[in-house]
Amino acid sequence: MEHTETLTRYMAKFVQGLVEAGVRDVVISPGSRSTPIAMTCAEYDEINHWVNLDERSAAFFALGMAKERRRPVALVCTSGTAAANYYPAVIEAFYSRIPLVVLTADRPHELRDVGAPQSIEQLNLYGEYVKWFHDLALPEGSEKMLQYAKTTAGRAVQEAILGNDGPVQINLPLREPLIPDFTLPGLWEADSATKERSPVIGKRAIDRGYLDSLIEKLKGFSKGLIVCGPQMDPVLGEALAYLAKRIGAPVLADPLSQLRANKYEKNNIIETYDAILKHDEIKQTLQPEFIIRFGAMPVSKPYLQWLTSLNAPLHFIVEPEAGYREPAGVETTAIYADPVIFAEQLAERLDQPIVENSWLETWKNMNQIAKDLLLAESPEEGMNEGHAVVKLAEVIPDQSILYVGNSMPIRDVDTFFMTTPKAVDIMANRGANGIDGVVSAALGTGANGKPVTLLIGDLSFFHDMNGLLIAKQKNLNITVVLINNDGGGIFSYLPQASHPEHYEELFGTPMGIEFQPFVEAYGGSYCLAESWDEYTNALAESYVSSGLSVIEVRTRREENVPYHRAKWESVKEAIGKQLKG
Amino acid sequence: MEHTETLTRYMAKFVQGLVEAGVRDVVISPGSRSTPIAMTCAEYDEINHWVNLDERSAAFFALGMAKERRRPVALVCTSGTAAANYYPAVIEAFYSRIPLVVLTADRPHELRDVGAPQSIEQLNLYGEYVKWFHDLALPEGSEKMLQYAKTTAGRAVQEAILGNDGPVQINLPLREPLIPDFTLPGLWEADSATKERSPVIGKRAIDRGYLDSLIEKLKGFSKGLIVCGPQMDPVLGEALAYLAKRIGAPVLADPLSQLRANKYEKNNIIETYDAILKHDEIKQTLQPEFIIRFGAMPVSKPYLQWLTSLNAPLHFIVEPEAGYREPAGVETTAIYADPVIFAEQLAERLDQPIVENSWLETWKNMNQIAKDLLLAESPEEGMNEGHAVVKLAEVIPDQSILYVGNSMPIRDVDTFFMTTPKAVDIMANRGANGIDGVVSAALGTGANGKPVTLLIGDLSFFHDMNGLLIAKQKNLNITVVLINNDGGGIFSYLPQASHPEHYEELFGTPMGIEFQPFVEAYGGSYCLAESWDEYTNALAESYVSSGLSVIEVRTRREENVPYHRAKWESVKEAIGKQLKG
Repeated sequence: MEHTETLTRYMAKFVQGLVEAGVRDVVISPGSRSTPIAMTCAEYDEINHWVNLDERSAAFFALGMAKERRRPVALVCTSGTAAANYYPAVIEAFYSRIPLVVLTADRPHELRDVGAPQSIEQLNLYGEYVKWFHDLALPEGSEKMLQYAKTTAGRAVQEAILGNDGPVQINLPLREPLIPDFTLPGLWEADSATKERSPVIGKRAIDRGYLDSLIEKLKGFSKGLIVCGPQMDPVLGEALAYLAKRIGAPVLADPLSQLRANKYEKNNIIETYDAILKHDEIKQTLQPEFIIRFGAMPVSKPYLQWLTSLNAPLHFIVEPEAGYREPAGVETTAIYADPVIFAEQLAERLDQPIVENSWLETWKNMNQIAKDLLLAESPEEGMNEGHAVVKLAEVIPDQSILYVGNSMPIRDVDTFFMTTPKAVDIMANRGANGIDGVVSAALGTGANGKPVTLLIGDLSFFHDMNGLLIAKQKNLNITVVLINNDGGGIFSYLPQASHPEHYEELFGTPMGIEFQPFVEAYGGSYCLAESWDEYTNALAESYVSSGLSVIEVRTRREENVPYHRAKWESVKEAIGKQLKG
Repeated sequence: MEHTETLTRYMAKFVQGLVEAGVRDVVISPGSRSTPIAMTCAEYDEINHWVNLDERSAAFFALGMAKERRRPVALVCTSGTAAANYYPAVIEAFYSRIPLVVLTADRPHELRDVGAPQSIEQLNLYGEYVKWFHDLALPEGSEKMLQYAKTTAGRAVQEAILGNDGPVQINLPLREPLIPDFTLPGLWEADSATKERSPVIGKRAIDRGYLDSLIEKLKGFSKGLIVCGPQMDPVLGEALAYLAKRIGAPVLADPLSQLRANKYEKNNIIETYDAILKHDEIKQTLQPEFIIRFGAMPVSKPYLQWLTSLNAPLHFIVEPEAGYREPAGVETTAIYADPVIFAEQLAERLDQPIVENSWLETWKNMNQIAKDLLLAESPEEGMNEGHAVVKLAEVIPDQSILYVGNSMPIRDVDTFFMTTPKAVDIMANRGANGIDGVVSAALGTGANGKPVTLLIGDLSFFHDMNGLLIAKQKNLNITVVLINNDGGGIFSYLPQASHPEHYEELFGTPMGIEFQPFVEAYGGSYCLAESWDEYTNALAESYVSSGLSVIEVRTRREENVPYHRAKWESVKEAIGKQLKG
């Protein structure tokens, strides 16, 4: 078989292997060395291809897409530093357990480590941040090697989703000439598209004996808590609602737990624990005897600090597959089990509530008090970050996604986004909590057509403005609420703020740029919302318009801090009174 | 010693260690965990600090600065994916041999790998792309550990510049509270600034016996070539001019060899070998018997292809320290020696030229013919990429830097930028040849105040637009010649161009954005040059203005290819005639 035919058939098999294992989308960044794999993906109808120029943005775009579709997404780039630009998203994917299949084109072996142009050492480029790495053999035309290309592609997908989901890398050495010939007969297997070879993976289930002994242990106590941190399983909400009802416990629900939205029963959901647990006196009053945590550690720092001060006799962490996520440094028992099955089985085996009703009622009362105060409009004039979330929660559409930036926005959503019957998937980059790549990740979640609202600060928006290009090119729908406090708002809450000498330069970091021209250059519509009416009108309009809409909310860092502190103070006072009374 | 004092003294020692070892600049990206090191750098007068928000841009900015200052530059970022954004520049620095001291703030040991927020595994984050890695001990206040902090900082700088220059990483675990107290007495050693502890590193010198035997070997032949690829030593030009004169050989000088500019004697410099060697007939006529190459492999692809077809009996590659840069796969002898000393010693030991004059004259004649043709204005109307370089070379100021983007611009500079007595440092990211980070690298070279001209294509400019923020914030002077062919111009010259089906989407990749609003949003002045007069006037004006000036030259990909091909064809014909005649 001559070179071009070998190359073409090998690549065709490889891409079919990806598709049969469950990949439906590939995000391609342009380049020369990657021509065979890029063109094959573009040629094969069973896989959607997306072109995203900046590899850093491309990888976060793929991450968002994989998150929303809950299936692995492939990435293709050329050789050299292109692949290194994927690194931030690969790390985020590793920690947030999102399956990405990274395909890096490479020079062939004879051009490695000899100073050839645009060639770097690409083996194990992502170190321990990929779950699996393979250096593909150079294309060969034998039946055996064509089969190898296909099974290896499938293997990569399998490795990405077995155990905790995560990224994998296949490095593809390719020799010139690089152009495949798609006129060759018999390139595509006839039934490939309908084959579904994605692996069948059993879920961890706990035996009944342990469940019974666990219930016996829990029965020794009456103050229990269910906690749910960031997690992506859309049906866990229902299972936990059932468990909470049967066991009688309040559920501290992180904004990324998927428990604050949707039509589940939410009687026991406590959304405001972050505000409640900011106060030492209240913290000391609340001494749970057992905690069962699902998902990752919650976003709330007060919760983390409270944990370290507690001495709960029983503390369980339910992990679906593997991993260790307990940064408070307290003693816990890990339960490696499918959270939905575990919650349901535990609930079913309970004959009566374990948690005393007064404990549940205390939490529910505190929550109601805090909610009323947090949702109330501030008497002061002007826009602020907290109420921007309250208003957003009112108008955000059903069946949509809210993507939340790190630093302040995720904390504001934690504080101000309460339960809603609307099916709003709240997502964020909480694997490594970076401010990078957030625009692209949000756009990726919306690539499938679901409406997306991105709530993001100015620094984070700036960091990934390149991500907006694909919004323009593909006319993707996205509503961006840009909270512009001209710099790093979060530092105003930290001790750095009391050191004026280096503060603005190192932490405040005002950029002093206007965002309107950037948004418009990317074909977006821009609105500066200076009142809550303007804000909600602009939001409503953005949801019926196509393309990119950016609604900027300008807030002043020096006003936000007192605003938030006053809210928290009022929560403290009201709850303190209630606890005493 | 209590926490804050320990932290402060430890950091002060560390930063003094950097300074005493020769670091004068640090590029900081904002963050919380990095507060101690960032504030200490900001506080200490002996080190300049630069704040650059996007870590990817920051690292390339540091790379450019290190290149121009020819000394190591430090980088500071916070924990998490911030550090991963440095990866592309770290790789570029590794391959282009630029010393960077990467300082990554980290969570302390008890918060590693336990799901703590914004904490990722940072040990050996850059794999084999750093020459040295060290995980610093947590701050301790003993005399011994303060000394350790200082010597370790010095050690890092030393590792960055011993052997081939390159990047190193120190990971700094830091516990809260993070704010140093600079009011402590005796923080700074009195004579620290005047201490100079950067290591004294001997240069490799070849013994006379070998030099004599080498000369004897060379004397067996009469057709010799000196080739100089990309290299940064500013005095090699003079040494090679001397060697070329004594040995009688033509010097094929890459645009990044530093040999085309400056006031060296350039009698034997051949700039147009790329155009000459594009033609098979000419290539076959030219059969050198020995080649002595300095620097990396030249940019020219025709040169590389010619090499693989040659069977030169003697082929030497002079490497200053270490490394293997011979991608043509031909047999060579490596000479590990300081290039300047080697060239001078070799030249001095020659009693008469080895190379026959007719060989030298053939090359010089070909070069003159090619030069005349390449420099001639095209009779057609409209702007083109080649002539943009010709005109730029005419007006570019003395004592300035020309930073060149990868893909087409570096090839155009190779073809169209001829020798000049002006002291123009021509630089490019040729370690890994990426299109990423070029804007920031160029800005970094100009941070010291030297005028910089950046010649760059639209994709590469787009990729690093975030880099422009620091130009606005620090009012850095830079002239950008933006060659806008609305996409990936280089692919028009590659076989991909003949596959219209996927071409525009995967390779042409037109962005369809206007650059003027971006430039203006960053406070720059913008000019669309539609004639050569407008172009040279705008260039001249930019050199007397401060801040960012972008001069856009719009070219059409479908016109550039015939333009360049016609030029090369004319060179072929004229030289063919001369060789026959």
